Amino acid sequence: MIKIGIVGGTGYTGVELLRILAAHPQAELSVITSRKEDGMPVAEMFPSLRGHVSLAFSAPEKARLDQCDVVFFATPHGVAMAQARELLAAGVKVIDLAADFRIKDTAVFEQWYGMPHSCPDLLEEAVYGLPEVNREAIRNARLIGLPGCYPTSMQLGFAPLLAQGKPLVNEASLIADCKSGVSGAGRKAEIPALLAEASDNFKAYGVKGHRHLPETVQGLEAIAQRKVGLTFVPHLVPMIRGIHSTLYASILPEARGTDFQALYEAHYRNDPFVDVLPAGSHPETRSVRASNMLRIALHQPAGSDQLVILVVEDNLVKGAAGQGVQCMNIMFGLDETTGLRHVPVMP
Amino acid sequence: MIKIGIVGGTGYTGVELLRILAAHPQAELSVITSRKEDGMPVAEMFPSLRGHVSLAFSAPEKARLDQCDVVFFATPHGVAMAQARELLAAGVKVIDLAADFRIKDTAVFEQWYGMPHSCPDLLEEAVYGLPEVNREAIRNARLIGLPGCYPTSMQLGFAPLLAQGKPLVNEASLIADCKSGVSGAGRKAEIPALLAEASDNFKAYGVKGHRHLPETVQGLEAIAQRKVGLTFVPHLVPMIRGIHSTLYASILPEARGTDFQALYEAHYRNDPFVDVLPAGSHPETRSVRASNMLRIALHQPAGSDQLVILVVEDNLVKGAAGQGVQCMNIMFGLDETTGLRHVPVMP
Amino acid sequence: MIKIGIVGGTGYTGVELLRILAAHPQAELSVITSRKEDGMPVAEMFPSLRGHVSLAFSAPEKARLDQCDVVFFATPHGVAMAQARELLAAGVKVIDLAADFRIKDTAVFEQWYGMPHSCPDLLEEAVYGLPEVNREAIRNARLIGLPGCYPTSMQLGFAPLLAQGKPLVNEASLIADCKSGVSGAGRKAEIPALLAEASDNFKAYGVKGHRHLPETVQGLEAIAQRKVGLTFVPHLVPMIRGIHSTLYASILPEARGTDFQALYEAHYRNDPFVDVLPAGSHPETRSVRASNMLRIALHQPAGSDQLVILVVEDNLVKGAAGQGVQCMNIMFGLDETTGLRHVPVMP
Amino acid sequence: MIKIGIVGGTGYTGVELLRILAAHPQAELSVITSRKEDGMPVAEMFPSLRGHVSLAFSAPEKARLDQCDVVFFATPHGVAMAQARELLAAGVKVIDLAADFRIKDTAVFEQWYGMPHSCPDLLEEAVYGLPEVNREAIRNARLIGLPGCYPTSMQLGFAPLLAQGKPLVNEASLIADCKSGVSGAGRKAEIPALLAEASDNFKAYGVKGHRHLPETVQGLEAIAQRKVGLTFVPHLVPMIRGIHSTLYASILPEARGTDFQALYEAHYRNDPFVDVLPAGSHPETRSVRASNMLRIALHQPAGSDQLVILVVEDNLVKGAAGQGVQCMNIMFGLDETTGLRHVPVMP
Repeated sequence: MIKIGIVGGTGYTGVELLRILAAHPQAELSVITSRKEDGMPVAEMFPSLRGHVSLAFSAPEKARLDQCDVVFFATPHGVAMAQARELLAAGVKVIDLAADFRIKDTAVFEQWYGMPHSCPDLLEEAVYGLPEVNREAIRNARLIGLPGCYPTSMQLGFAPLLAQGKPLVNEASLIADCKSGVSGAGRKAEIPALLAEASDNFKAYGVKGHRHLPETVQGLEAIAQRKVGLTFVPHLVPMIRGIHSTLYASILPEARGTDFQALYEAHYRNDPFVDVLPAGSHPETRSVRASNMLRIALHQPAGSDQLVILVVEDNLVKGAAGQGVQCMNIMFGLDETTGLRHVPVMP
Repeated sequence: MIKIGIVGGTGYTGVELLRILAAHPQAELSVITSRKEDGMPVAEMFPSLRGHVSLAFSAPEKARLDQCDVVFFATPHGVAMAQARELLAAGVKVIDLAADFRIKDTAVFEQWYGMPHSCPDLLEEAVYGLPEVNREAIRNARLIGLPGCYPTSMQLGFAPLLAQGKPLVNEASLIADCKSGVSGAGRKAEIPALLAEASDNFKAYGVKGHRHLPETVQGLEAIAQRKVGLTFVPHLVPMIRGIHSTLYASILPEARGTDFQALYEAHYRNDPFVDVLPAGSHPETRSVRASNMLRIALHQPAGSDQLVILVVEDNLVKGAAGQGVQCMNIMFGLDETTGLRHVPVMP
Repeated sequence: MIKIGIVGGTGYTGVELLRILAAHPQAELSVITSRKEDGMPVAEMFPSLRGHVSLAFSAPEKARLDQCDVVFFATPHGVAMAQARELLAAGVKVIDLAADFRIKDTAVFEQWYGMPHSCPDLLEEAVYGLPEVNREAIRNARLIGLPGCYPTSMQLGFAPLLAQGKPLVNEASLIADCKSGVSGAGRKAEIPALLAEASDNFKAYGVKGHRHLPETVQGLEAIAQRKVGLTFVPHLVPMIRGIHSTLYASILPEARGTDFQALYEAHYRNDPFVDVLPAGSHPETRSVRASNMLRIALHQPAGSDQLVILVVEDNLVKGAAGQGVQCMNIMFGLDETTGLRHVPVMP
Repeated sequence: MIKIGIVGGTGYTGVELLRILAAHPQAELSVITSRKEDGMPVAEMFPSLRGHVSLAFSAPEKARLDQCDVVFFATPHGVAMAQARELLAAGVKVIDLAADFRIKDTAVFEQWYGMPHSCPDLLEEAVYGLPEVNREAIRNARLIGLPGCYPTSMQLGFAPLLAQGKPLVNEASLIADCKSGVSGAGRKAEIPALLAEASDNFKAYGVKGHRHLPETVQGLEAIAQRKVGLTFVPHLVPMIRGIHSTLYASILPEARGTDFQALYEAHYRNDPFVDVLPAGSHPETRSVRASNMLRIALHQPAGSDQLVILVVEDNLVKGAAGQGVQCMNIMFGLDETTGLRHVPVMP
């Protein structure tokens, strides 16, 4: 059994980790920290876990995280980088669900996250936890920076196009029009996230610039090995879970005959959590609700050179906790799908 | 492995059976019928099942239901009673999610369901599939009439009160104010169930009389072994899944000192799917979302003789498909919780 | 034109007052206070008001409330009672949407609101702003304590029964099972009110005791001129606006022949904002959305002595701001419906 | 008073026309037809209209539409073109909310709507009812083809760009990523529009080709007087009302210095129902809920040549019924805003 520690288990990615790991056949929940809730049984805060999780929260100073095999950080940005060095030194693997180990360029990190990076050497070692792109590196990693929810959908949506030897689309002006359920904003008491504000409503936000833009561009360029330009517009959907990314790429004249459907199917044929739907499908976010699956469908509207790529994922699973467990499985030599074979909940 | 047949797998209880059974370690989905969708892979209609269910729908006349170990009917009322005799004769167990085998008095059945009952002898044999009340009878049953969604919550909510030797509350005027998510109405194209009609809205319905009233009264009287009077008012909640029943009972003067909390905890101490919450709790429907758990909390408002019992369940799981699988587990000698240990999905 | 001041215009009842008053033909919005937003145009905080409200928020100390004809307090409890005396002395009428002037017994007020009452003499003078019960007193009032949202629906639902010379129902054990949209909790940043928490979910709350209970009992007893016992269970509905109260009363043996439908229709025949629906109707909250109408329907389930009364209102309009404007119209000698003839928004 | 007839008043655009016209100071609702509901009071089908609309539905053959001043068709495609000639001959003005008189090229109409056009001569005469583009033509029109809901938002969003003498953006590859509430699909009993299917869910649809594409391209080309290429991807949002269109246009190198904000503000300075928000705003659909206002905001993400235009409208008002009344006001010489000054309902 893998002994698991969770730092910061009171947010949505934390409780989702608990939901998944409580039923994971190789995981043993050992420690979960929360200063504010020290001593409170986890299932008292989250009654959905009654009968599944018997652990109580511990204050960080009491928690023996160093005796775990792996520690997940489901914390605000900046926490993991303060604690990772000590844990790694104790032989504990670290998986950060926040942004501390995502962006390789510390100047870019500091610009977008408004804090200096406290351990650039670890950042260099850290592996970006996107298994479909970095599976081998993850296998040997001690330290994982998990992708953001939007970046997962954008990168996996564009990857087959960009991974080719020569450009198929205008890589300088990709567009990602993304829509997310409100759980993406976290379990924070903020007026715009109230049901009375956000339901029966739709809006864009962060059009001027969103932290997931530099992360995604870094990832796309790593895949393409070329410069990439991206316009990213996130929107808020009145639903709890789910991301739907609608991606636009202009097909280059020389690539007009390409069988994109075949390209995508081939690219993902060995990835258990990416499902390329039949051409012309319209994936729904609920088709992946509460599961680690990501589904993709391709469209080429008649009379146009635009390729339209539709991508859906559950932002809390493939976009966060599930992807973390997928990385853990790889790091510990388990079958990648262990504990992650949830049938999506529909309706 | 138990070979499973499902008649009528295109509604919500049918697809929920598929979700549960696809991951059940002892179940093998063998046949699923639908005249209209003959030949269509189930996962084409329900993309959430891609990778989990490889079966296709068969027209009823082609389906070899007689080679199954158990057949679930997730059909409109009247279908199961037309086919049960033949299946039972072939040694197949039958679990009906509709109303054909719920109401013992055929005159009452005919009054509320508007059709004659075609096999009163089987009706007599049929066991009402509420494990917390009828576990032993279910163990030996060939034919199960599963409770309705509302009746499950009302009966399990009132049962500990009524199961006592003498009345504790005014059993002649119980009140059940029940609220259900819209999936309870089934996957039927009807205007009042449209999102544009039912969301951001709340209403009562069927106050004049709802089919779940006679079923529930029959069940309560079986538990109490006394006459029971019930006022039942169902309401429609703008959510997908979940039933919340708010039950009212007037405590009799002679029962004022009763420790109802202890009574309920004792009553359900051996029932894995009934969770009596600490006194004064307010259970939320999402705390059981997509799971077979039912939670109960008791309140005694100050200065009043009313006992208020709050009950939540997922109408598609404990109120339908999950309860069916729970019965199947009992009938086939499995641990009652096999394949039903889902952690509720929250948020 | 009536010069209007609003204290605390940044919550839901405040912005609803603005929506109504901005289009009221006899109202002139003169002052709106908010310490935090001093100087900010109201329409910058609430873009829905662009083009309709040109006013900016003023800090309280700059606001010339004493030059208004009437001041509405859409503030937390305790604010109005601190400012009312001075305004009244200046000849300004005061309408409080909070609880300061609702409960006549200061001991009860202090018990439920946790603060001493600072002006019992004004409390004595204050008129409870429920026009259908107190129209004449409102006409001559200087100071109005507006009913809470739940109490409005419960009192108007029970009033025709209780207003009779002798009891028709068991007045000692009335039950009100009430369901409210989330805007009733106000525009406050609190986790349980987040869309990710409250949507696709249903729960009761405050069963142990809710502040609207003593207020409602006081009102019911004033109507009945007799003692009344009430069990009140509020619930949270995943919708923005609307209250649905399901009221239960046991008909006394001697009142069994009563034509309750006729009784209700007669009682409300001169009330423009109470609509008694045909017997057996199921009113929906959306049928009054964004309007000042309250609708009632009566049911007598077969074989029972329960009278079931269904009441719907928009909690922000008839349950708050609209009722305030209705009182204002009466106090200033206008037609009661002036500026309140909104057609409900459906769908 | 303008005598109004409505053909097909049982759908969402019909009931929205009723909501608006019932409170319009110059409108007199004279006739409303529905074969199926002949004789039923309108307010019985739509209780929200109780006290506001006393009319009953009439079967078409009894309805004296020829005695109206104007007849609105809120019907399926094909109905208006069958009845328009006779009404026009009787001196009645006709406003069609369906597609019969939108598309000037009958071959295109027949291709997308699957029926021949029965009166090409009237089609030629018909004016496209988009006041911000065609105000003068509307003033003198007898026959109006009202724009679709999506086309209104796309055309008004792109119009200021395209209306210039020379291209500012790459007009060959405009992109419109549009999101609509479910009322856009009409009041039709269809499974995908059920609350249990469409809520807590998000999806694209019609990516292969949607009827609003040719209509919008025709409109954009009329504005630009040049060829235009458009990719249009509609999505379904789990909300009742509202459209949010996110429009993308690549700024041409020679237009990089353009002050687009000033351009838009100038373009719409005399249009009472178009509100250009301060640069960098994120308009929300609820900011126009139940009103005829359309709001636009412009963004130019740093380091990119994309212009991102955000547009919100209420699909049932500015996208349908409200725009129809706006046209009627213009046709009858009234102030354009008569009966349309609703303050949006928020929250």
